[in-house]
Amino acid sequence: MCTSGQGNHSHPIAVDLADTAEPSAAPSRELIEELVAANHILFDQGVVDAFGHISVRHETRPDRFLLARNMAPSRVAAEDIVEFTLEGEAVNAGGRKVYLERFIHAEIFRKRPDVMAVVHSHSHSIVPLSIVKGMKLRAVFHMAGFVGQGAPVFEIREAGGDATDLLISNNHLGRALAEHFDGHDIVLMRGHGSTVVGASIKQAVYRAVYAELNARYQLQAMQLGEVTYLTEGESRACVAHIEAQVQRPWDMWLEQARARRA
Amino acid sequence: MCTSGQGNHSHPIAVDLADTAEPSAAPSRELIEELVAANHILFDQGVVDAFGHISVRHETRPDRFLLARNMAPSRVAAEDIVEFTLEGEAVNAGGRKVYLERFIHAEIFRKRPDVMAVVHSHSHSIVPLSIVKGMKLRAVFHMAGFVGQGAPVFEIREAGGDATDLLISNNHLGRALAEHFDGHDIVLMRGHGSTVVGASIKQAVYRAVYAELNARYQLQAMQLGEVTYLTEGESRACVAHIEAQVQRPWDMWLEQARARRA
Amino acid sequence: MCTSGQGNHSHPIAVDLADTAEPSAAPSRELIEELVAANHILFDQGVVDAFGHISVRHETRPDRFLLARNMAPSRVAAEDIVEFTLEGEAVNAGGRKVYLERFIHAEIFRKRPDVMAVVHSHSHSIVPLSIVKGMKLRAVFHMAGFVGQGAPVFEIREAGGDATDLLISNNHLGRALAEHFDGHDIVLMRGHGSTVVGASIKQAVYRAVYAELNARYQLQAMQLGEVTYLTEGESRACVAHIEAQVQRPWDMWLEQARARRA
Amino acid sequence: MCTSGQGNHSHPIAVDLADTAEPSAAPSRELIEELVAANHILFDQGVVDAFGHISVRHETRPDRFLLARNMAPSRVAAEDIVEFTLEGEAVNAGGRKVYLERFIHAEIFRKRPDVMAVVHSHSHSIVPLSIVKGMKLRAVFHMAGFVGQGAPVFEIREAGGDATDLLISNNHLGRALAEHFDGHDIVLMRGHGSTVVGASIKQAVYRAVYAELNARYQLQAMQLGEVTYLTEGESRACVAHIEAQVQRPWDMWLEQARARRA
Repeated sequence: MCTSGQGNHSHPIAVDLADTAEPSAAPSRELIEELVAANHILFDQGVVDAFGHISVRHETRPDRFLLARNMAPSRVAAEDIVEFTLEGEAVNAGGRKVYLERFIHAEIFRKRPDVMAVVHSHSHSIVPLSIVKGMKLRAVFHMAGFVGQGAPVFEIREAGGDATDLLISNNHLGRALAEHFDGHDIVLMRGHGSTVVGASIKQAVYRAVYAELNARYQLQAMQLGEVTYLTEGESRACVAHIEAQVQRPWDMWLEQARARRA
Repeated sequence: MCTSGQGNHSHPIAVDLADTAEPSAAPSRELIEELVAANHILFDQGVVDAFGHISVRHETRPDRFLLARNMAPSRVAAEDIVEFTLEGEAVNAGGRKVYLERFIHAEIFRKRPDVMAVVHSHSHSIVPLSIVKGMKLRAVFHMAGFVGQGAPVFEIREAGGDATDLLISNNHLGRALAEHFDGHDIVLMRGHGSTVVGASIKQAVYRAVYAELNARYQLQAMQLGEVTYLTEGESRACVAHIEAQVQRPWDMWLEQARARRA
Repeated sequence: MCTSGQGNHSHPIAVDLADTAEPSAAPSRELIEELVAANHILFDQGVVDAFGHISVRHETRPDRFLLARNMAPSRVAAEDIVEFTLEGEAVNAGGRKVYLERFIHAEIFRKRPDVMAVVHSHSHSIVPLSIVKGMKLRAVFHMAGFVGQGAPVFEIREAGGDATDLLISNNHLGRALAEHFDGHDIVLMRGHGSTVVGASIKQAVYRAVYAELNARYQLQAMQLGEVTYLTEGESRACVAHIEAQVQRPWDMWLEQARARRA
Repeated sequence: MCTSGQGNHSHPIAVDLADTAEPSAAPSRELIEELVAANHILFDQGVVDAFGHISVRHETRPDRFLLARNMAPSRVAAEDIVEFTLEGEAVNAGGRKVYLERFIHAEIFRKRPDVMAVVHSHSHSIVPLSIVKGMKLRAVFHMAGFVGQGAPVFEIREAGGDATDLLISNNHLGRALAEHFDGHDIVLMRGHGSTVVGASIKQAVYRAVYAELNARYQLQAMQLGEVTYLTEGESRACVAHIEAQVQRPWDMWLEQARARRA
């Protein structure tokens, strides 16, 4: 294909969006600062590059969520956080461009009331696994019990046809993706990446980091022979016990993120 | 082979070249600074090491282009940028050595009037793909739609015989390479690397970064099973929508490049 | 599996533990500082992330050992070091949380009187090898002679059933793991990582670093063909001669660790 | 194997060596500084870790060579450089410990009068290639033409039996290794690493860096299919033309090495 001369088409990734809903009670300063730190940590840990995003459900308005405006995660500051409705409409963008793929977050928050945070990324070992036919990401080590017995792969062609840009660019595609989170906390997206959810920002960040490592280890092991995966019981026990420790890596990552930006 | 004692042969890579054409109207300061930044970014992102180069077409003289003198990209400054004709002749080298492979740039700019910038590199996952018989780099994820349905592989033996140094060291080889850009924006070069083109410096840099990632993911996936590639329609949609976002990674890379050199 | 809403279960990794034994004569300042440095080095060299730990046997009380309180190794300071009995009971935790997996250390120190230091980690090439059925880590290069003719793989299902969290969370599991160190200085733990032992902190750190490299090289080589492993005689000679040099990497790692934390 | 309690055996790697020959005319300050810089660069570029070494032939006494005392290359300073005879005897060690494997350098300098510098290392992609039966490192890209049509693999068992520590610990083993440099500028050492030679420090450093990349690319490509290697003519042309450019990477590496140590 020869495309150098092509311009923009129907839907740009960065969107100019009129604010269409009432602003809620302001989220706490702590929540916003944690979301900002999560943006930096996801970059530092190699989960996102200039693309990818993390959201958190509003603490007093469960029908709202917070997400940075359209920008690289490593550069996000408190004033870049925008509030959205579960329709993906911006509340206080004030004319700033927002992420096209906010529908990922909106529809998962709608589908899964227990989910408090969502990370969407294209990390280095997840993408290759997402494009191998018949391949399933499965939990292979204790840090990634949440991956469980086989993460679903979202094939956008089923909901959007075979000529999309692979992006979750509207509510319809967002809902089709969110359906895959029924009984799962991570979903791979073919030729695109993955989305993981958690009961807190820290848990979602932890899972995004260790999902990548699980994919890397699974990739390497499958080249050598038959793999022993975690059992259902092991997966559940690992989630229950090891994810109770998310504060430990978070404290370290946060300290590193601050030192790098000092 | 035992070669320690050998000296230089017919064509050195670094060339002493008399200026043979009239200097054009000076390119804008902005264009030169963007080209300098692109050199630094390509190094920081691991696309080039001490070798590899990026050029931009002159903004007011489409028959001229700008390229650093013969040096490592990470160290390029504004005063190192030299103007060339589409014959690959230096306009204002002033006795400084220039890249032997300037013919890559010259002949592609001649062949493809829509191309504004050219990156030539030897990035880590591109070289291995270039040497596997029958292998094609194909778009596997949404960030690399421009790779399309199979990048051509330039086999220098067809144009230069089986005892070359693999370098594009004259107009004849440059033209043979440029022919492969008919309908393609990236061409692999067997045992050497790749060349990518774009409608701007930012787009060409973006493509060089994500071509490497596409190669890396494809390499990993092919070891596990059959791969689902992007369709032609998906490739085109990804180029149209996602490459409209090149400013986002550029801003981040530029900030990092400046911080590293402060 | 869908687990976002789950809370903690029976045994948290970070444990609140009443001090149940008499404090011993204080260990030397030198030993504590070496243990602190070892924590930092293991992080810097990529052997541990926020998880993993290193212990040393008390120099005057062979029935006691020293281990950091529950925290990321890269952040450990002298005041974070806690003394434990060989039952895994804390002597001077003073209410601070300790590692659940202290039983790894306790039971190995009990089983192997010659062992002075123990490293438990989840390094990147060890985990994949631990999950391939029938696979054995074997010494492939001179720096890792201690790996020997095939490291045992600890399968926790044999001692703990098929629904554990894979952690060595009590004396029973600790003893089952320690049994595998009969005639071996490294044991892989399926779906978890490895534990290595040494006659000093420096030797244990050295072995943890080079066990990871051995695994990485073995993984790569096995994908290409039949591998030549070290013979028993080569392994023994490498341990005897090359591990006499542990001071050389230690000095370099220590200098780097201090520079990074200055 | 269970070796924690073992002590040193017959030959320590770090050797206390009486000076047995007359010191020569002092080498130039420039040569010593270049050798020091080469030590730092080899570490920074990932060719050596705390182990590995580089030597240069004395500029006015071709029967002498210069090599650091026994220490990590990244920490070498001018005062650490020691002069040796081609028997591997130290001239001015003054009681400082020297590398056991100085015989690698001594015997290659004796065997190959055209060689001016020797690098011995265990870089990450070379070791795995060295242990695959029947495998040959061959030139796959233009930067590594010096690898040629198949680097010999030195199997120490042929000269030293099957219970050595794999080290080149005496003149006999050094000579056996040096024999493999007849017609080759790089030799792999099974289960150990490689040694490369050059007509200058800069060329030897360049070759050590690009030999590692050639091995990495070859490893990756061989997993995907049949590989196109450079022809004999291509290899020779690459050496002649591209290695004339060693100053370019050297200047960049030197600048980086100095910045890191400022």
